[in-house]
Amino acid sequence: MEAYFDNSATTKVTENVKNIVVDAMTKDYGNPSSMHMIGVEAEKYIKDAKDCIADILKVDSKEIYFTSGGTESNNMAIIGSVEANKRSGNKVITTKVEHSSVANPMKYLEKMGYNVVYLPVDEYGVVDLEALKKEMSEDTILVSIMYVNNEVGAIMPIHEIGKYIKTVNPKVVYHVDAIQAFGKMEIRPKKDNIDILTVSGHKIHGPKGSGFIYIKKNTKINPIILGGGQQEGMRSGTENVPGIAGIGLAAKECYDNLEENVKIMTDLKDYLIDKLSGIEGVTINSRKGDKGAPHIVSASFSGVRSEVLLHALEDKGIYVSAGSACSSNRPAVSETLKAMKVDKDLLGSTIRFSFCRFNTKGEVDYAVEEITKLLPVLRKYVRR
Amino acid sequence: MEAYFDNSATTKVTENVKNIVVDAMTKDYGNPSSMHMIGVEAEKYIKDAKDCIADILKVDSKEIYFTSGGTESNNMAIIGSVEANKRSGNKVITTKVEHSSVANPMKYLEKMGYNVVYLPVDEYGVVDLEALKKEMSEDTILVSIMYVNNEVGAIMPIHEIGKYIKTVNPKVVYHVDAIQAFGKMEIRPKKDNIDILTVSGHKIHGPKGSGFIYIKKNTKINPIILGGGQQEGMRSGTENVPGIAGIGLAAKECYDNLEENVKIMTDLKDYLIDKLSGIEGVTINSRKGDKGAPHIVSASFSGVRSEVLLHALEDKGIYVSAGSACSSNRPAVSETLKAMKVDKDLLGSTIRFSFCRFNTKGEVDYAVEEITKLLPVLRKYVRR
Repeated sequence: MEAYFDNSATTKVTENVKNIVVDAMTKDYGNPSSMHMIGVEAEKYIKDAKDCIADILKVDSKEIYFTSGGTESNNMAIIGSVEANKRSGNKVITTKVEHSSVANPMKYLEKMGYNVVYLPVDEYGVVDLEALKKEMSEDTILVSIMYVNNEVGAIMPIHEIGKYIKTVNPKVVYHVDAIQAFGKMEIRPKKDNIDILTVSGHKIHGPKGSGFIYIKKNTKINPIILGGGQQEGMRSGTENVPGIAGIGLAAKECYDNLEENVKIMTDLKDYLIDKLSGIEGVTINSRKGDKGAPHIVSASFSGVRSEVLLHALEDKGIYVSAGSACSSNRPAVSETLKAMKVDKDLLGSTIRFSFCRFNTKGEVDYAVEEITKLLPVLRKYVRR
Repeated sequence: MEAYFDNSATTKVTENVKNIVVDAMTKDYGNPSSMHMIGVEAEKYIKDAKDCIADILKVDSKEIYFTSGGTESNNMAIIGSVEANKRSGNKVITTKVEHSSVANPMKYLEKMGYNVVYLPVDEYGVVDLEALKKEMSEDTILVSIMYVNNEVGAIMPIHEIGKYIKTVNPKVVYHVDAIQAFGKMEIRPKKDNIDILTVSGHKIHGPKGSGFIYIKKNTKINPIILGGGQQEGMRSGTENVPGIAGIGLAAKECYDNLEENVKIMTDLKDYLIDKLSGIEGVTINSRKGDKGAPHIVSASFSGVRSEVLLHALEDKGIYVSAGSACSSNRPAVSETLKAMKVDKDLLGSTIRFSFCRFNTKGEVDYAVEEITKLLPVLRKYVRR
């Protein structure tokens, strides 16, 4: 049996997504900037994808721009908006538990002289609203908060944050990294006062190398990639039509049956949490039901190093992640778990299981069975 | 009959490229940063593509980094290298005929206070070496020259430039935009003193959204996209494995039979130039044989607006380009043709035909036949 529980690292594209990517590579392969029919046919894929995503978010399709993925989207959101608003202030607010594609642009801003504040989180990984209220000021030009934490699935109070920060400074740019949330929850940028929302394709059964950024009309932001002026000059470069078509369709497939898909994942999550909770020395870092994201279970296994457990599970055809697995190979100590004040001894003993709508209860049963068999053996032989 | 003569705008992926992209999306869909087998399998595609490209360029595979395309590669080459070398000088040298993905980052540098010099070209679009020699100085930190001009196919004296500028300032970064040259000529960065070389996938029958940048070991350059530290931190973001596999294979397919492929294209080019030269009121802006790139013919048709001719040809299934067609829809007056001092009346009457190795002589015959029939009609009815 095989069980791929690493869907927050990346997903397999669906059959339909594969087909549209192939069509855009072989049948409608034109350059959308070409004035002839073959270009126009290619351009239609972009329009369709834009319309589809705008419809999901209930925004104007002119507010959607395609990028090469979540990392580029986050870089553009942060560096592009801060550069465009630098005359309005010097302060930027984010959290201690952001993905490295947010955290590293923030470090770059610090180097450039900006005052970047990293908000603490509670034991569940949820950002401290009181801390935000203390820090939020009129000279804050950007607030960047992830919707769902990629390591433990904590859901941030996006709505409350948007509402509050706009009362203090209506001009502040509010960026929400929705890379782990999109496809798993209803997202309404307008309702939540979100100015910029960033999404990756390959986390939602779309192609790698695809992503988008929602930019609310009239938001001040600079492009970070310059050239031929494609996408209203916000993101130059010949559009990745196959990738764009793929992310559009993948989004549609997620949202066409959102409730059902969320129920599948939440049931698997709760089932796995219940099963793991019954095993000695296992600590769960994620929350059941709608208190956490539907697809992520972080669990710490005392007395076992995470890589060891990961590779033992791999031998059984079970694929999980140690750390966030979105950062290059080196497994570093998790900033998220540290910020959550997870027991020091457990920091290096934590595994992330992440589901998609195609996973099954049988796969969870199989994984739990193998973990139950493996743990005593690994604990015995693998001294830390 | 159909004739797609817009291969410098974009190309159709080959059957093999399509297949490897599909495999990487559906079979080996892992995240290369994941520590388990599914991640490792995905990583192999990257290694293979890197090795293949390094072998073509006769460089170390560690000097190859993948990007989202030519535009990102050029932005990184220019902005990334200038930021890393700003303490060594303030001068940047380029040409008047660069693609907008170079020209617009240059405008950005000007805004940032750099002294950017745009070298003139001769009537064939070839950069003026004497002008370069006058401008090149010890405080020049970057020289950025395209290998092949995208509008007329002019070949720049890359080797001579590299040799000369390094004698004046061995530390100068030498960037060559090889987007229209790669796949059509032998390129040897080491021999030509090139520090940074940039390439796009979709111009060589690879997937859109793929590109690479060669960065010579020890070249000072900053990444422009920050995050999880993938690709040695030079380009963060989950690697676009299908795109990378695709560009690697597409490159291999070009270079496995380079001579033969170049001959096919050069023969078509020379044949078209000969045929068009025989038509009254047609001026050829490209050069025959190995004096110009094998795949590009720019021709001006007096008394006809280029868009009108483009759409008339489109009706006959012949797809060409007015201007470079890599920049977003708006057909602006060509900077390249202006710099070449093309007759003012012909600036708006110019068409680019661009070939690939799959085009045929029969297609050229068909196009010439249609043009011959169309021209008198268009000249009669379409007053400018």
